[in-house]
Amino acid sequence: MATLTVPSQVPSPTEDAEQLSKAFKGWGTNESLIISILAHRSAAQRKLIQQTYAETYGEDLLKALDKELSSDFERTVLLWTMDPAERDAYLSNEATKRFTSSNWVLMEIACTRSSLDLFMVRQAYHARFKKSLEEDVAYHTTGDFRKLLVPLVSSFRYEGDEVHMMLAKSEAKILRDKITDKAYNDEELIRILTTRSKAQLNATLNHYNNEFGNAICKDLKTDPKDDYLKLLRATIKCLTCPEKYLEKVLRLAINKMGTDEWALTRVVTTRAEVDMQRIKEEYQRRNSVPLDRAIAGDTSGDYEKMLLALIGHEDA
Amino acid sequence: MATLTVPSQVPSPTEDAEQLSKAFKGWGTNESLIISILAHRSAAQRKLIQQTYAETYGEDLLKALDKELSSDFERTVLLWTMDPAERDAYLSNEATKRFTSSNWVLMEIACTRSSLDLFMVRQAYHARFKKSLEEDVAYHTTGDFRKLLVPLVSSFRYEGDEVHMMLAKSEAKILRDKITDKAYNDEELIRILTTRSKAQLNATLNHYNNEFGNAICKDLKTDPKDDYLKLLRATIKCLTCPEKYLEKVLRLAINKMGTDEWALTRVVTTRAEVDMQRIKEEYQRRNSVPLDRAIAGDTSGDYEKMLLALIGHEDA
Repeated sequence: MATLTVPSQVPSPTEDAEQLSKAFKGWGTNESLIISILAHRSAAQRKLIQQTYAETYGEDLLKALDKELSSDFERTVLLWTMDPAERDAYLSNEATKRFTSSNWVLMEIACTRSSLDLFMVRQAYHARFKKSLEEDVAYHTTGDFRKLLVPLVSSFRYEGDEVHMMLAKSEAKILRDKITDKAYNDEELIRILTTRSKAQLNATLNHYNNEFGNAICKDLKTDPKDDYLKLLRATIKCLTCPEKYLEKVLRLAINKMGTDEWALTRVVTTRAEVDMQRIKEEYQRRNSVPLDRAIAGDTSGDYEKMLLALIGHEDA
Repeated sequence: MATLTVPSQVPSPTEDAEQLSKAFKGWGTNESLIISILAHRSAAQRKLIQQTYAETYGEDLLKALDKELSSDFERTVLLWTMDPAERDAYLSNEATKRFTSSNWVLMEIACTRSSLDLFMVRQAYHARFKKSLEEDVAYHTTGDFRKLLVPLVSSFRYEGDEVHMMLAKSEAKILRDKITDKAYNDEELIRILTTRSKAQLNATLNHYNNEFGNAICKDLKTDPKDDYLKLLRATIKCLTCPEKYLEKVLRLAINKMGTDEWALTRVVTTRAEVDMQRIKEEYQRRNSVPLDRAIAGDTSGDYEKMLLALIGHEDA
């Protein structure tokens, strides 16, 4: 469930574009006005505002925002305003250019989006970067990371609920055998994780847990510092309990000495219109603090206001 | 260029459905009538006829054809009548269930279709088989074949004409080094072939040829009997000169002792509406015989008539 709140009476795109143009004018920018509009419009509405703004003022709204705003607040407003598929394409491209820590971002996008949404990210990637997503991921990664990430970002998983129990049993056994042999980069293990439907994978991992006495992620914790094993566990978590995975990303981002604004901004802007309600519940359960209070304690100014508005904080 | 011919005055889908229903009635089936209708309608027109037939007669047209027709003629009419994406999904699924020789069919579909068409095949595969194409391909293949085929069927290549010459040079060098080391299943080699745009790959292979004095396929012929090397050469040919590849499939199918009807039917039904004109030109050039004469010499009856109609033979 989304946390985005949209007023019952939404102004026309023309009125919204006009108000945004006013917010940019004169001395200083009216950040509150910008938040009050953009943080309370759906993706379809934001798209219309962007089109109307371009037609009326002859300038791209994202470029205008880029000129007027700065730092974390700017990044949040820009990411939020973008079309979701374009936003994911942008984040993925950014991730292919940074250090291996950003493999997590690629995995997160590949595993938490629906199959069709992931495909639309690949289309948006073509349009914006004149290359394919998998081409950049394959080029910028090596070894085990590449073996796992390329099929993840290329996947188009079946999304039905059908589960084949015999297959779940036989593939649970394969996973167990490979893990016992410490063959964590084995192609059969990677095949199962990167091609099976989420429902099927869930059945396989439940069977694993029942039959072998441990959750698979526990068995994959033999070397807690191994980055590939960490990514493998994160992949499994993302595919089976995305809200728990994203709660953890938020928790680590907020608890870090000096907040990890990139992670915080990414999760809030990409999930506010999808499942942020569930992520908030997980956050409260795991931290005994509501997410909005945690965010308020760790951020400030317009950045704080924008994040709180997106996660559905009452007064924002 | 297509070889399909559609009359200037096309009857309405209702008239066509009625005529087909008549062709099925009474003693024996009127095969000529079926050919005169279906072999001269575009994919969009065939789809409308199918819909109208189902609404009017309460029966799926493909099922009715299946009941009335038999052997190679039946397979040709059924494959031709199907929606192109569904047809490719059907052929791919069939290929995952057969022996490794059918790896060629998977490669052919993955490499000769446009990126969006291949994606539509993956969508049709979900709808029909309740699984993903890459899931079945990965499950039914092993070793080097899997390493190559899974990324091929999962690819969504960029289709622009942009070429990066520096990249072409550096990747031509990578290919050369791997081939010199006989590392034909090397992940860098597979990455380049499975992710780069066709335009980029073409530039890379041209550079390979210029710089190292041999076409890459020649350098991949060290062991002419190695099935994986054969598939690798076929992949390169399919990606760079699909018409020449398909001409060769037809040539081998026709020259074989006992025609290979499966290959002949597949190429004619899948390319008649795409690039069969170019394939016919290649055929004439390579064999000094027109394709229609070669087909007429090797097939007979309604099967022959249907194939000739699809490749645009004058009287068919």
